[in-house]
Amino acid sequence: MDNLQTLKGFRDFLPEESRKRQYVINSLKEIFESLGFEPLETPTLEYAELLQGKYGEEGEKLMYKFQDHGGRFVAMRYDQTVPLARVVSQYGNLLPSPFKRYQIQNVWRADNTQRGRFREFTQCDIDTVGINTPLSDAEVIAVAINAMKKLGFRKPQMWINDRSIFNQLNLTKAQIMIIDKLDKIGEEMVISQLEESGLKNAKNIITHLKGSAPTQELIQIFEYLREQGLVKNEDFLFSPLLARGLDYYTGSIFELKTLDLPYMLSLGGGGRYNNLIGIFAKKEIPAVGFAFGFDRVLEAMTQLNLFPSNLASTEVLVTIFSPDLLTQSIKVSQKLREENINTELWLDPSSKLDKQLKYADQKNIRFAVIIGPDEISSDQVVLKDLTSKTQKAVPAAELTGHIKNIND
Amino acid sequence: MDNLQTLKGFRDFLPEESRKRQYVINSLKEIFESLGFEPLETPTLEYAELLQGKYGEEGEKLMYKFQDHGGRFVAMRYDQTVPLARVVSQYGNLLPSPFKRYQIQNVWRADNTQRGRFREFTQCDIDTVGINTPLSDAEVIAVAINAMKKLGFRKPQMWINDRSIFNQLNLTKAQIMIIDKLDKIGEEMVISQLEESGLKNAKNIITHLKGSAPTQELIQIFEYLREQGLVKNEDFLFSPLLARGLDYYTGSIFELKTLDLPYMLSLGGGGRYNNLIGIFAKKEIPAVGFAFGFDRVLEAMTQLNLFPSNLASTEVLVTIFSPDLLTQSIKVSQKLREENINTELWLDPSSKLDKQLKYADQKNIRFAVIIGPDEISSDQVVLKDLTSKTQKAVPAAELTGHIKNIND
Repeated sequence: MDNLQTLKGFRDFLPEESRKRQYVINSLKEIFESLGFEPLETPTLEYAELLQGKYGEEGEKLMYKFQDHGGRFVAMRYDQTVPLARVVSQYGNLLPSPFKRYQIQNVWRADNTQRGRFREFTQCDIDTVGINTPLSDAEVIAVAINAMKKLGFRKPQMWINDRSIFNQLNLTKAQIMIIDKLDKIGEEMVISQLEESGLKNAKNIITHLKGSAPTQELIQIFEYLREQGLVKNEDFLFSPLLARGLDYYTGSIFELKTLDLPYMLSLGGGGRYNNLIGIFAKKEIPAVGFAFGFDRVLEAMTQLNLFPSNLASTEVLVTIFSPDLLTQSIKVSQKLREENINTELWLDPSSKLDKQLKYADQKNIRFAVIIGPDEISSDQVVLKDLTSKTQKAVPAAELTGHIKNIND
Repeated sequence: MDNLQTLKGFRDFLPEESRKRQYVINSLKEIFESLGFEPLETPTLEYAELLQGKYGEEGEKLMYKFQDHGGRFVAMRYDQTVPLARVVSQYGNLLPSPFKRYQIQNVWRADNTQRGRFREFTQCDIDTVGINTPLSDAEVIAVAINAMKKLGFRKPQMWINDRSIFNQLNLTKAQIMIIDKLDKIGEEMVISQLEESGLKNAKNIITHLKGSAPTQELIQIFEYLREQGLVKNEDFLFSPLLARGLDYYTGSIFELKTLDLPYMLSLGGGGRYNNLIGIFAKKEIPAVGFAFGFDRVLEAMTQLNLFPSNLASTEVLVTIFSPDLLTQSIKVSQKLREENINTELWLDPSSKLDKQLKYADQKNIRFAVIIGPDEISSDQVVLKDLTSKTQKAVPAAELTGHIKNIND
């Protein structure tokens, strides 16, 4: 095969990128778990019938579907909400109620990659299912804000609205979607598109929305957020024009922005949706959730330099001076690992030292240890700091201490 | 849809199971990273052309293949080795050499589920690519043994052989596969099947193999293992009849057993394969690797009770006595979280206490905190230990200390 490449919209994650992903995933998991959200994993393939008709016309087109070896029509995970609905119906009382779950898995959508979208990407969702209280909305909102703070964002800000405000106005789904584009296309364009859609008093409606007051539910949610130490108009704010694209929301809706960058960036969104989780159980099952824009979060963190500098895991490369001195190098690397220092032993006893040091450099390994005949006779080792480009001979027994000191 | 279920061979992982999986994955990653193995992720879908012809007739049949929206023939990841070969060819000098990577992702095979196999399962591989030294074989073997010890296995044991011993005997691939079944079908059956396959001196060959001595390469590997503190005939042994099913091995082959259970169980296997990674680069690229049988490891750990008892992450449920006392409960839960105690706040201010405690029970939350009017007036809280079924009133300021004391 001459055409050695990945499919359009699909990505390899080489070590540096993969470590960043893992760092974000682990940080998020930690905060989710600290509040009692539990992990759920569902299969990559489901019966196509289960997913079909759940994602609208657009979703139907983008879904990866095929017939498996047994002639079944199957589809690849398109989101994590419909599988959650299946799980809730299928396992019923085996799950606690409320069921607070997080799910971090890949989904697949045959989207247009020219819009900067990927066809395989990671979704990261938290949802609280089976309870309909403003306190549960506030919890999900607070988790999302605090998660971003934990990752190092200084100014995450949740914009909050209530979908029922729109519902009172008898707007069509299409009209709500137009208002949702306000951020991108501006007020004038929104009004003109609303008029085109048949809405006569578009301008008045926008003015009315702008001046509307938060609902009782929102007032309650804001109060709970304040009690959890979050500050109104800093950490969160009332945003009466926020509409959110998806049409299944039934109450609160919210979108997380970051003000850390020169431009405003959305890091995720969510809301209350009381009619979706029960589609299979055929009864109303209330739910509220938030979806992090995983790629966006990573991209913003890279721009803001929020990743720890020591994500490269190996701290020390123990080099091999010559084949007959290998045993000494094995011993030193064993010793370092016992002291919880991530240590790599060079693997070819016949390599030149130069080659070994180049390898350490390429892998961003900070320290190299050299053990030659002079060192062995004086029970010392040479500790080379590849960052400061300095080196010194230290007693073998004190090597760990020296490394830890420099690192501190 | 009345037929609410997962596809045959595909699994949901509910929180308890998902946590076990995460625990094993995180433990393995930690040891891999401590030795300088780096994470790699490759896409779920690849060009079918890239995977075809790499897994033999059987693999061809089991691979999930279909045409995507653009008419491309695509296939789902079938293993992690062919994608590694693609990555090594595609990124070349961007990767360090040797390239030591680990990869823990799902693969898909439309296998017969009656044989206890799953169609979606997690593979966990480590490989060292680009170097052909016994020291690199020894490292991979040692990592695998030490990883199992770290997970709590007391008697993991690596059986080691050299594929070149078979190569000298001019056995066919089919004949090697027969010998590989020795564990399962016994010596007599192996000899009879070998004879059927056209081998005249089958019995002699088996006797010859049994009496064969380790190759120079194996002797060297054993020496390195000993220098890393591993004990021959305990942690590892020479197993002259070990053949390993896959036919791409070119040197050392090894299989990890556990003697912890009443029956012998294989936890994974690997070996040196110098002709596979270079298939796309069209040159020889040496490699040695090990694949953990992820499901097997989990199953054995469950049987041996090797999972920590506190895998359920929430330690405390802060209950809500009545709607007007909610603020107190919010404050206490905030405080506990600040002290790094994973704490859940009940989410419905109007629930009866009984319901809240049942929830804590179902989620295996050990402590419940109750804050009623009496407690508030005396600045106390009631700490209920759901394990010992005892409770006591403690000063609010000392709550964290009490919980940490009981946990110790």
